Amino acid sequence: MAERKPWGGRFEAATDARVEAFTSSIDDDRHIALDDVTGSRAHARMLQETGLISAAEGADLERGLTQVEQELQDGSFPWRAELEDVHMNVERRLGELIGPAAGKLHTARSRNDQVATDARLYARRMLTRIGDALGALQAALLEQAEAHVDTLLPGYTHLQRAQPVRLAHHLLAYFEMFDRDRERVGQILGRLDRSPLGSGALAGTPHPIDRARSASLLGFSESTTNSMDAVSDRDYMVEALAAASLSMVHLSRWCEELVLWSSSEFGFCIIDDAFTTGSSMMPQKKNPDVAELVRGKVGRVIGAQVSLLVTLKALPMTYNRDMQEDKPPLYDGLETWARSLEVSAAMAPAVRYRPEAMRAALSEGFVTATELADYLVTKGVAFREAHEIVGRLVARCVADGRRLDELSAEELAGHDPRIDADASSWLDPEQAVERRDLPGGPARDRVLTALAEARARLIRGQA
Amino acid sequence: MAERKPWGGRFEAATDARVEAFTSSIDDDRHIALDDVTGSRAHARMLQETGLISAAEGADLERGLTQVEQELQDGSFPWRAELEDVHMNVERRLGELIGPAAGKLHTARSRNDQVATDARLYARRMLTRIGDALGALQAALLEQAEAHVDTLLPGYTHLQRAQPVRLAHHLLAYFEMFDRDRERVGQILGRLDRSPLGSGALAGTPHPIDRARSASLLGFSESTTNSMDAVSDRDYMVEALAAASLSMVHLSRWCEELVLWSSSEFGFCIIDDAFTTGSSMMPQKKNPDVAELVRGKVGRVIGAQVSLLVTLKALPMTYNRDMQEDKPPLYDGLETWARSLEVSAAMAPAVRYRPEAMRAALSEGFVTATELADYLVTKGVAFREAHEIVGRLVARCVADGRRLDELSAEELAGHDPRIDADASSWLDPEQAVERRDLPGGPARDRVLTALAEARARLIRGQA
Amino acid sequence: MAERKPWGGRFEAATDARVEAFTSSIDDDRHIALDDVTGSRAHARMLQETGLISAAEGADLERGLTQVEQELQDGSFPWRAELEDVHMNVERRLGELIGPAAGKLHTARSRNDQVATDARLYARRMLTRIGDALGALQAALLEQAEAHVDTLLPGYTHLQRAQPVRLAHHLLAYFEMFDRDRERVGQILGRLDRSPLGSGALAGTPHPIDRARSASLLGFSESTTNSMDAVSDRDYMVEALAAASLSMVHLSRWCEELVLWSSSEFGFCIIDDAFTTGSSMMPQKKNPDVAELVRGKVGRVIGAQVSLLVTLKALPMTYNRDMQEDKPPLYDGLETWARSLEVSAAMAPAVRYRPEAMRAALSEGFVTATELADYLVTKGVAFREAHEIVGRLVARCVADGRRLDELSAEELAGHDPRIDADASSWLDPEQAVERRDLPGGPARDRVLTALAEARARLIRGQA
Amino acid sequence: MAERKPWGGRFEAATDARVEAFTSSIDDDRHIALDDVTGSRAHARMLQETGLISAAEGADLERGLTQVEQELQDGSFPWRAELEDVHMNVERRLGELIGPAAGKLHTARSRNDQVATDARLYARRMLTRIGDALGALQAALLEQAEAHVDTLLPGYTHLQRAQPVRLAHHLLAYFEMFDRDRERVGQILGRLDRSPLGSGALAGTPHPIDRARSASLLGFSESTTNSMDAVSDRDYMVEALAAASLSMVHLSRWCEELVLWSSSEFGFCIIDDAFTTGSSMMPQKKNPDVAELVRGKVGRVIGAQVSLLVTLKALPMTYNRDMQEDKPPLYDGLETWARSLEVSAAMAPAVRYRPEAMRAALSEGFVTATELADYLVTKGVAFREAHEIVGRLVARCVADGRRLDELSAEELAGHDPRIDADASSWLDPEQAVERRDLPGGPARDRVLTALAEARARLIRGQA
Repeated sequence: MAERKPWGGRFEAATDARVEAFTSSIDDDRHIALDDVTGSRAHARMLQETGLISAAEGADLERGLTQVEQELQDGSFPWRAELEDVHMNVERRLGELIGPAAGKLHTARSRNDQVATDARLYARRMLTRIGDALGALQAALLEQAEAHVDTLLPGYTHLQRAQPVRLAHHLLAYFEMFDRDRERVGQILGRLDRSPLGSGALAGTPHPIDRARSASLLGFSESTTNSMDAVSDRDYMVEALAAASLSMVHLSRWCEELVLWSSSEFGFCIIDDAFTTGSSMMPQKKNPDVAELVRGKVGRVIGAQVSLLVTLKALPMTYNRDMQEDKPPLYDGLETWARSLEVSAAMAPAVRYRPEAMRAALSEGFVTATELADYLVTKGVAFREAHEIVGRLVARCVADGRRLDELSAEELAGHDPRIDADASSWLDPEQAVERRDLPGGPARDRVLTALAEARARLIRGQA
Repeated sequence: MAERKPWGGRFEAATDARVEAFTSSIDDDRHIALDDVTGSRAHARMLQETGLISAAEGADLERGLTQVEQELQDGSFPWRAELEDVHMNVERRLGELIGPAAGKLHTARSRNDQVATDARLYARRMLTRIGDALGALQAALLEQAEAHVDTLLPGYTHLQRAQPVRLAHHLLAYFEMFDRDRERVGQILGRLDRSPLGSGALAGTPHPIDRARSASLLGFSESTTNSMDAVSDRDYMVEALAAASLSMVHLSRWCEELVLWSSSEFGFCIIDDAFTTGSSMMPQKKNPDVAELVRGKVGRVIGAQVSLLVTLKALPMTYNRDMQEDKPPLYDGLETWARSLEVSAAMAPAVRYRPEAMRAALSEGFVTATELADYLVTKGVAFREAHEIVGRLVARCVADGRRLDELSAEELAGHDPRIDADASSWLDPEQAVERRDLPGGPARDRVLTALAEARARLIRGQA
Repeated sequence: MAERKPWGGRFEAATDARVEAFTSSIDDDRHIALDDVTGSRAHARMLQETGLISAAEGADLERGLTQVEQELQDGSFPWRAELEDVHMNVERRLGELIGPAAGKLHTARSRNDQVATDARLYARRMLTRIGDALGALQAALLEQAEAHVDTLLPGYTHLQRAQPVRLAHHLLAYFEMFDRDRERVGQILGRLDRSPLGSGALAGTPHPIDRARSASLLGFSESTTNSMDAVSDRDYMVEALAAASLSMVHLSRWCEELVLWSSSEFGFCIIDDAFTTGSSMMPQKKNPDVAELVRGKVGRVIGAQVSLLVTLKALPMTYNRDMQEDKPPLYDGLETWARSLEVSAAMAPAVRYRPEAMRAALSEGFVTATELADYLVTKGVAFREAHEIVGRLVARCVADGRRLDELSAEELAGHDPRIDADASSWLDPEQAVERRDLPGGPARDRVLTALAEARARLIRGQA
Repeated sequence: MAERKPWGGRFEAATDARVEAFTSSIDDDRHIALDDVTGSRAHARMLQETGLISAAEGADLERGLTQVEQELQDGSFPWRAELEDVHMNVERRLGELIGPAAGKLHTARSRNDQVATDARLYARRMLTRIGDALGALQAALLEQAEAHVDTLLPGYTHLQRAQPVRLAHHLLAYFEMFDRDRERVGQILGRLDRSPLGSGALAGTPHPIDRARSASLLGFSESTTNSMDAVSDRDYMVEALAAASLSMVHLSRWCEELVLWSSSEFGFCIIDDAFTTGSSMMPQKKNPDVAELVRGKVGRVIGAQVSLLVTLKALPMTYNRDMQEDKPPLYDGLETWARSLEVSAAMAPAVRYRPEAMRAALSEGFVTATELADYLVTKGVAFREAHEIVGRLVARCVADGRRLDELSAEELAGHDPRIDADASSWLDPEQAVERRDLPGGPARDRVLTALAEARARLIRGQA
């Protein structure tokens, strides 16, 4: 508490202890401690190369930062809660390790551009990890799709059985969702590929630094183009959390289905013991906890995005302390997204589908009723009329407790004379699927093509 | 990892390590560890009193729980990450301390009603603390209001100077906001005042427990009335976070004003050094960081509320694992609310208002233009016409760079003959405020009455 | 466009046409047009009673307002888009109907307190309607619960069959949720029961109005106590939307269950044709559209609450034009809530439950496994051990494709010698439910008591 | 009500009237009525080209659709509320206009892919308009920036004066924000550039349609690749609303600044009468209503995004009726965004900056204190120490009520001997800005370069 502040010159009274506790970001900052060292190392090297510090000072800083990095990695770094944030902690430790040269590290740099740099490095690192996790999940789904080209099940709308499809086709729908997620991640990475270092507090610095050099050392393609924007820009964070929200919604849909499908009522799949848990009270329970938790975590990520947007709303230029509150949602949102994807990628292969249960569901529920209507269309009946004819036929079957495919050719013709003997082939789910032979459709060849294309896209994306 | 699960009986394969990490709630659970002990102690005592466990077992449990409580308080409790959650950690530790009797604690209790009980105890504890913090903030505002009955400033609409008011009146507006917050907190406490203990996993228990007794031991007025609702009810959490969001919006408004008022441009107040911080780059800076951070944290709390609502959406009965995700927003939201209120209550007395700057602002900006229109109304002019007359007069003054009170009686009469010599008294801010002598208005007597009533309400609320 | 503004005096240039379109609130304002007339009538009468306007003027205003009210009701009111808002439209029309006296209506009143009054009248009206709708839904659920005291089904956790309960018990869980909603609505109505009329633009008025009288004429118990707070207070709106969000979450849970239960896989209920719709393509479809739409609308209401909170964040005192944006979420949120409740109350009786399907589900899934563990507890086995024993037994049954109640007494005893012949009665769902004979539990008598209490509460609430 | 439903075949009971009202999307659908005609025209033409309908039928449909389109445009289209949605309304009208051929339009098409197509056409249309509005706003900001290269003002952090910058530099920061918005809009347009038409209800169609042809007729580059994904994909809507939320946050920041700057206290700008409004009560008021409303509308758009995410959460495959609730937030969010941008682009040139007021603000507030510290760095002092030295100097000046540039060379040297006579040039704001001569910095040449690059980017973007 008696700690001298790096900004204490004009202050007479000491900071209130409650204020120190309230304004400290130490706990959150640990997420970016290594990124902070990375940023400082690049800044120090540039300072030396441009002659703003001496070679000896540069060597000291490099040595000290390497030591700090190691301490952070092995957990021995001596965090001090009374030092506001990670930047002060690192600087202080550096002072202990290398003496006065540590004070040179803040030359031509403000905490504003330092924190802007650290956060970009963190986001880049996390988004790269997330892109990999998306790819791993897609690979797992694709592998299962490839194994289930010939597994038929009812496609659903309104959670009512609708029309027969291939399980491969169903799983590929999720592949598409995560593919869009991956594309978005790539675009965000593209947009954040600019180094803010050198923007100072808001207006750069009078010292002749080399922004391009530090950008290059940090692996950024270029530097940001306006110093005031650079220190107050949180766009890539909002974008990342928006992409996270949407991706978590995709996961929530997939997990909802896993919960449904692994219920006794559906019985469409069994999730391996390793990905389920039991009940402390009910000995028979085997619960799809992982799927439920991933589904539940969508709330957390949407909440994180809302947090950030609300915090940023109506802040005038440039940096305002409110912006410190960007970090908790960023860290929590991206970690949650990453971990949800990773555990999902691990769980996906542990889902054993039950083709026989799916096949049984196909035989009930009139899933080929549309086919019969389409059959009538081929006989010249307008679709609207055909729909009405079949609708009445279904109503009769429901009343009699019969299935469409149990009706004899005579009964069908009796219902409408345009239903000939050749209609029965339209009532077979297998043939129904095969007839839907169009790009993006569930016919066997189309699905094989789609699988091959998906595989190619995945390989391209990971290249 | 090789840890035997409390529900492992029917499982063949061990839980995947990634799943253990993903489903664990250990880190979050520390918030309710002590509440968990409190709940267990009441349950154990009830079990003994009803004869479901022996006196010896009861004594062992009491002894063990006291020990656990102490370890939790002094930080020596041996947390084990591989044990899913706080409940398992406490139970395991209990087993080490008192042996087999520990296993009796789960008699007639499920984790579902245990966690429901813990969370209510936590929410009750936090909301009580928050009610106190609201009272403290109100007291601080009230004290300043009492000191500024005779400080006049422009009231603003659209951030434009509008009409003169007393600073006491202005501050009392915030008192009202926080008073409603406090009322809401009380009502939520009323609604959560029911013990869910005894609801089992979802359908109670076949054992003859005494729910009223454990409720009473926990300080609840009654028990919940439906076991299925009890284990899946998260209403009080949503309510608490909704009240938190609104209250944080109130704080954000107050803090926005502190940021504005402490700017060089307004200069209406100075915040003590102890509640401001400086810049690591700019030696002259003295920033209202606390006000900014509190303002920024409104995002965090609104985000927490959204998280919870999203997580709960469309969950079928009764408990679903998604509900584990209720805890992070609950803890983060309520802690943030509590800490924001507490630091605000500490900061409020550290705001030094500058009556002279306020007075100077009053003399510009035509804040008594409405008075002149109202004066004309007393002369029989319809308000709409009076408004038009004064509007044109203001436009003339703006063009000439003059103030209304600089116009001579002749000039006023020249603009409209119904403006007599007695009009000038209406242009004096002091007299303008005094004329607004109605309940809820800014006249001196009315403000004194309001202060007295506020003081009385505050005392009542804290009684 | 050439319309003279009521505030045009000091302005030289006309308002940009795009600005007029952008700032107009006409479309939204129609929701409160009648409330605006109500507020004006009370204000006019008070003005006359206090002598601020003459008896003749008062009579003119009363006559004119009655005429306007009728025009609004029968749709003949001549709305003019170029007149900013409802207030100007009403005032203009009044001018046409009664001449100059219309101009007197704005005496001692500002649009700020006028709109504050209108919005409270609207919220009071809507919340009253919502309270009724909640009661109607509760009544419908209660009626069905009363009819299904002896219908047993599996209670679920994690969407896995858990323990047997009564359908009445299950439905009463929803009764409880909506009961809390109703209590909240009542408390919000209590908090908004204060008239803001007389608060002026922000500082009251110099005219000797009688606030208590206008409050009383409007049916408010009292007046607001601080004029600055009164014109900027939106708490009751936020509160109402927060209660709406939570209540919609309750509806979403109930509707999720209806969607699940009416699926072919569950088959637990049939929703009448009148509350389902079909597919334009698939003739066999009968979709639970109403349940889906209600479930989907939870997003709309949560979004409305977020909108309002974000809009209010960090607005300094007092009124800011941003606050005009409070109306769209308020109207949309409350209308959506009201309509969702009303259609739900209508749909609830149209759900036909299928006890035989529920009974069938009970016989699978080991829903009495916990009973067997509890049976062992009565034999002195610690619950943790009993759970393990039964867990292993369930695993064996799953492997053998058998049910627990198919095991012979010998087989049971062979698994663990403490399982005696009397164990079999614990495996009967009916007896299992009856054993759970505790307050809030599913035993028959307890449910009958709960039904009676629910009925009494409902009658009390509607009194 | 007695209307025969297009799916009525299997239904016995008529739809409840309350359900019709509740499920109807007529009011919302008007936004996409013209898009629906566009989609149908392409579908009809493809049907004819592939021989699925006759040339005569194709001609009839084309003629009828043209007529419908015209009726929609001139407002004469006879909407019927009892016909569920826009699709049924158009189809019915078509029937009246061209007879039985109208029934052929639903051949090989479901409402699911029809609505998916309409929504994409709508989103493409709106996003194109939004891209234009962003460009217009950028152009307006750029023009002002070009006019204010030599206007200096204090850059702010924490709403405290920080360092001098050029107004052009400040305005370019906003240019950057809207530039990122525009880039995002382009990427979303790229991702939605796929025709879902031909996906059927969820599994395509058995008829030999030509998806590539209808895609091309609609101006899409390709077709979607999975029919199940296509009918349930709402990603581009979520993305568009996420981009809208972020862009509205940018607008809210700019508008916050306009509100601040046009206050009496700042006086940094005057907004033309045409973009402000007055008060009905206070004749002197001139309020920045447009800026306030735009700022307030950020809530509406964030709320819309939250609505959509919540609605989509955990919906299983494929279409569920909940998805009908995607439209209100989509329409409201995009319209609000478009209109906010357009009115902002109109307002931007109506902001008259006041360089003299900005210059006056520069002379107070110690905005060159950092320069003095940096000066000391050039003398070999470590920045940390230099900061401390200048901090103490500022504290002295504050106590004495003096400015830094009022201190004599002797006084400066007296404070620290390393402050030589050449220090005074560092205290001049103009020179301070010029020294910050680095990429992205505020020096004159750098700003001129940035202006030229911005102009070039804008032209490229509009090409």
